[in-house]
Parts: sequence; structure tokens; C-alpha cells
Amino acid sequence: MADMVNVAVDAMGGDNAPTETVKGAVEAVNADKRVKVFLVGRENVINEELRKYTFNAEQLETVHAEEVIETGEPPVMAIRKKKESSIVKAMYLVKNGECDALVSAGSTGALLVGGQVIVGRIKGVERPPLAPVIPNMNGVSLLLDCGANVDARPSQLLQFAKMGSVYMESVIGVKSPKVGLVNIGVEEEKGNALTKETYPLLQNCPEIRFIGNVEARDIPMGAADVLVCEAFVGNVVLKMLEGVSGALIQKIKGGMMLSLRSKIGALLVKPALKQTLKGFSTEEYGGAPLLGLNGLVVKTHGSSKSVEIRNSILQCIAFKEQKINQKIREQVVLGD
Amino acid sequence: MADMVNVAVDAMGGDNAPTETVKGAVEAVNADKRVKVFLVGRENVINEELRKYTFNAEQLETVHAEEVIETGEPPVMAIRKKKESSIVKAMYLVKNGECDALVSAGSTGALLVGGQVIVGRIKGVERPPLAPVIPNMNGVSLLLDCGANVDARPSQLLQFAKMGSVYMESVIGVKSPKVGLVNIGVEEEKGNALTKETYPLLQNCPEIRFIGNVEARDIPMGAADVLVCEAFVGNVVLKMLEGVSGALIQKIKGGMMLSLRSKIGALLVKPALKQTLKGFSTEEYGGAPLLGLNGLVVKTHGSSKSVEIRNSILQCIAFKEQKINQKIREQVVLGD
Repeated sequence: MADMVNVAVDAMGGDNAPTETVKGAVEAVNADKRVKVFLVGRENVINEELRKYTFNAEQLETVHAEEVIETGEPPVMAIRKKKESSIVKAMYLVKNGECDALVSAGSTGALLVGGQVIVGRIKGVERPPLAPVIPNMNGVSLLLDCGANVDARPSQLLQFAKMGSVYMESVIGVKSPKVGLVNIGVEEEKGNALTKETYPLLQNCPEIRFIGNVEARDIPMGAADVLVCEAFVGNVVLKMLEGVSGALIQKIKGGMMLSLRSKIGALLVKPALKQTLKGFSTEEYGGAPLLGLNGLVVKTHGSSKSVEIRNSILQCIAFKEQKINQKIREQVVLGD
Repeated sequence: MADMVNVAVDAMGGDNAPTETVKGAVEAVNADKRVKVFLVGRENVINEELRKYTFNAEQLETVHAEEVIETGEPPVMAIRKKKESSIVKAMYLVKNGECDALVSAGSTGALLVGGQVIVGRIKGVERPPLAPVIPNMNGVSLLLDCGANVDARPSQLLQFAKMGSVYMESVIGVKSPKVGLVNIGVEEEKGNALTKETYPLLQNCPEIRFIGNVEARDIPMGAADVLVCEAFVGNVVLKMLEGVSGALIQKIKGGMMLSLRSKIGALLVKPALKQTLKGFSTEEYGGAPLLGLNGLVVKTHGSSKSVEIRNSILQCIAFKEQKINQKIREQVVLGD
């Protein structure tokens, strides 16, 4: 069992817990023999769900946690007070080395705070970025930071670029990923104080393949594999992507219902469109890793269905087998 | 002629100049008797274009300008050196009171610099914001600032909110417009130093209808009529909107061509879709005003066609007749 990848899953986190979280865990262990899942949460509730499925019992264990941290709770307080919550107990499994990783669809704030306070940063990492994979015309990009800590320093952005490159190459499989700095113009002198100071740091860093500034307009076209920015900007990029896609698809669906003619047309284009738009989804890439911790914390969407939980668990295999944290330690810390 | 609205049009600015700029000017004067256009640029080139059309000669005048400021030129230098350029000459027409407004599809940087240096700010206005109208599910919002000056101060954002409210109400016609602060969460305490300091200023301002923080995800849903942010964030919002819409529509068009079945369907849905997506375009609202100047400077897309030039010229009528600058003076400056 030494080679197993042990993943703690917060069974109680997210809008669809525990139904979809437990289902996703079962799907993951049935998909890969290398993974063992520790379902953390109310034991009776989890066992109730588990009764629906068949799976190899050696790959699935339940860890009781009485409390649940709600999405709206102030994160620092919640992590400090709710010692018996599923997130805190799952965090300790990682901290104590019983698990390699933790997957949760619960409170982002609690995961960010708990990740730093309980799991702890890799020595030398200034700030662990939350790094979702976002879709583009030709594939995906890694966007970091999208966390809760805004107003980053240039040295932190340099670390994001290094950690993002390691993750993109070793977990997502993009060879020599292109790193872009999110900015308001492509010229070197464009931007605010942060981007102007960060640009030369990225340019002079031999560990990454820096391609310069990337304008937001070119992000959906796949201008870079690793997109570096501070968390406020990352949040705006991520949420504009979600918001515009959602609004436009809603608008198009409405348009297709305008006339009998268009309704018939809609029936005919639907299968092809569905296939196309699937390429604009990131479910298959799992959740967003919080990089630079002593272990892996993966945050999936609050609305995650089993497929996202499953893929987030399986993503932890590549993370462990590719020795991401060892690479981060070498490149980020020793490279400084 | 005293009541005419005099608009200087940079005939040489933009990718489609002078063909589309001249055409747009002709369309504008043919559409409204109240407007007189001064076409600024190389006289022989403009006259060549004008020969194609019929129009009331009293509503259209040519002002010769030998030079052109290119998009790539450093703006400060260009404005200083190219005294005979179409942008600089058009700016002086506004400064000297011969024109009420200036419309240009040329260099944004040159317009921002020239607007401040030549046309000049309204006394008390700290920073003139560039304020494009952006589409949402139910109509449009005004997004400000999208200019070149980043790292704004809270007092500047407060002025943006006031100027944006005046413009949205008097020019676009939205009664008592809702003002939102672009932020990474809806709670008051969310955000960076700038948004945290700006929030109470907006909340305590009696001249505007502040509805709180707006997350980027809700911008395309039409969460607010006036969206306030500093220019770096505004630029990312605007360009993500353009980039995601463009990528998604390209993706959908590609999807429709996948099979014979979908191709037939595409033919049937096309007219309805075209009509629907038109509602997601802002051409009819003209260009982006640069607010807070002694006169109006309107920046249209570099790729503007005649319809956008035309509507940008006509937009200047409402701006003058609604006495926007007088209202800005009263609310922004006296309200401080």
C-alpha cells in the first residue's frame, strides 16, 4: 500500500454533498487501482450513500467528522473553532502524512486559510496561489492567482510563474509551457506598478518560458499556457469567462426559440454544438490546485457533480507520481 | 447656426479611414439637421471620398491636417510633436470652442493625452475616465475607467461614479442608474485596499444610487448600470468580454459546420441568432466618451465602420443638449 495515492475527500463540502461527493469518490476508486480515498464527514450519512455502490473496500475508508464549515462563514474563525469539521479533519490527514492530497467543493476561504495554517507552505514559498485550469480555443490555460489574497508582490508573481509552469508541464502535460503576464497592453512598459516590476523578473528567469504580456482579449484564444496575475485580476478574468459564456449561451438558446424555423434548426445543430461546447468546459481537468503547500489541496466548484470530484481525485495521482512538490521546492526555492 | 452641434471628426483615424470615417460623417449629417461635422485630415483624400455622396454642404466642412498619428506611436511625444496631425487639429477645434465634440477611431493613447493636455479637464475633475458602453443580457452598462491611467485613488473612483451616473441617465436614458463597484466578492469587506476605501465613499454619496459590490460574473447579467473600477480592472473586464464572445461565437460557428445535419440546422437558426446577437452589440450606442473634459472626446473602435462613426457623432447631440458637462460640474465638483 506504500505506493497508493491517498486522497482525503471532504464529503460534506459543496452544493451537492454528500450525494455527488461520495459518488465521485466511488467512481475514482473504480477507475484507478492506485488511489485510496478517505471520505471525511458524518459517518452515518456517508455510509448511507455508499450502500448504493459496489467498490473495492480496501480503496475506500470513512473518517468521521461531526461538523461542517458553511460557505458563508468567516474562514479564519471557522478553521480555528470547528476542529471537528470535515475540512479541518481532512487537512490534518494531509498534514500528518496519512494523505497526500485533499479534495473539497466546500468553502474556498476555509481551504485557503486551512491550507496555509494547517497543511502549511513549502519552505520558501511566499504565497500559495489558487490555480484553476480555464478553457481556451485550443485547449486550456492555468490561471494563477485566483485566491483571496490580493495586492501581491512581484517576487510572488515570479513564484506563481515557476509553480504554474511545473504544474502545467507535469500534471496537464504541456511541454515547455508558455508563460504570459496578464496586462493591459503587450508592450513591456505597459501596465501598473506591479506588472512593470514583474516583467523583468519573468524575463530574466531561466526556469520558465516567458512570452511577454498577454492582453485579456487574447486569453480565450489561448495566448499563453500559464497566465500570471495577482488575485484580484485573476478573479475578474475567471468570473468574466464564466459570466460571458453563461450569458451568451443563454442568449443563443433564447434566439433559437424565436421562431418555428429556428426551433427546427436548433434540433439539428444541437448534437454538434454540444460536442463543440464540451471543448470549452474544464470538468475533465478536475479542480483548482492550491500550489506550494506541503501536500496538495484541490478546490472544486461549489456546484461540482461526481465527474468533477472523480477527476479531481485522479488528478492527485499525477501530482504525486510526478513529484510536483519536489519540483516546486527545487525550482521555486532553490532557484531563487 | 448657434444651436448646431459642431463635431470634429478625425477623418484619418482607425483601420478603415478615411473611407468609413467620411461615410459615417455623411450618414450623420443626413440623419440629423442639428449636427455639423468638421472632417479633419488630408483635404484631397477627404474630398475624393466626399464625391461619392450627396449631403447638405452647410453641414459638412473639411479642415486640412497634413499629418496622421499612428496607433503605435508613443502618445505624449506624438501629441507634442505632430501639431499638424488630424487628432491635434481636431482637439484645438474643441479647445477653441469652434466644436463641441471630437470623434476619433485613432490612437487611444493620443486621445487620452490630448484630451487632458489640449482640451483640458473640467476644474475639479481629478482624472477623466474613458467610459465605454458594454452589452449585457438586458441592455447596456457604462464601464469606467478603461483608460490608460491605472492605480486610481478612491476619490477618483467616487468621481467616476458621479460622472458615469450623469452620462447614463442623460445620454443613454437610464433613470436613476444603479452604480456597482467591481469587486471579487459582494460583501463590503471584500477586495483590495482601493475597493475597501472606495466602498464607504460610494455608500455615503447622496448623488448616486449605489447598490454595493458587483462580481465580474454578474456584469454580463446586467447587475449594474454604472460599473466603477480602476483602469487596469476595467481593461480586463472589457477585453475579456470581447475575447470570450469572439472565441465562443467562433467555436459555435465551427460546431455548426461539423456535419451535414448541423449545416442545415445552421441555415435555419441563422436569422434568429443574428437578431439575438445584435442585442449583444453596442454599435448603436456609439463610441466611448472621455468624461470630465471641457468638451466631449469620443473614442470609437479602431475597426469602426461607418455606423459606429455615425452613431458616435449623433451621440454628441444628446451630450450637448443634455448639458452633461454642466451637470458634471455641479455634481462632481460642487458636490465634493
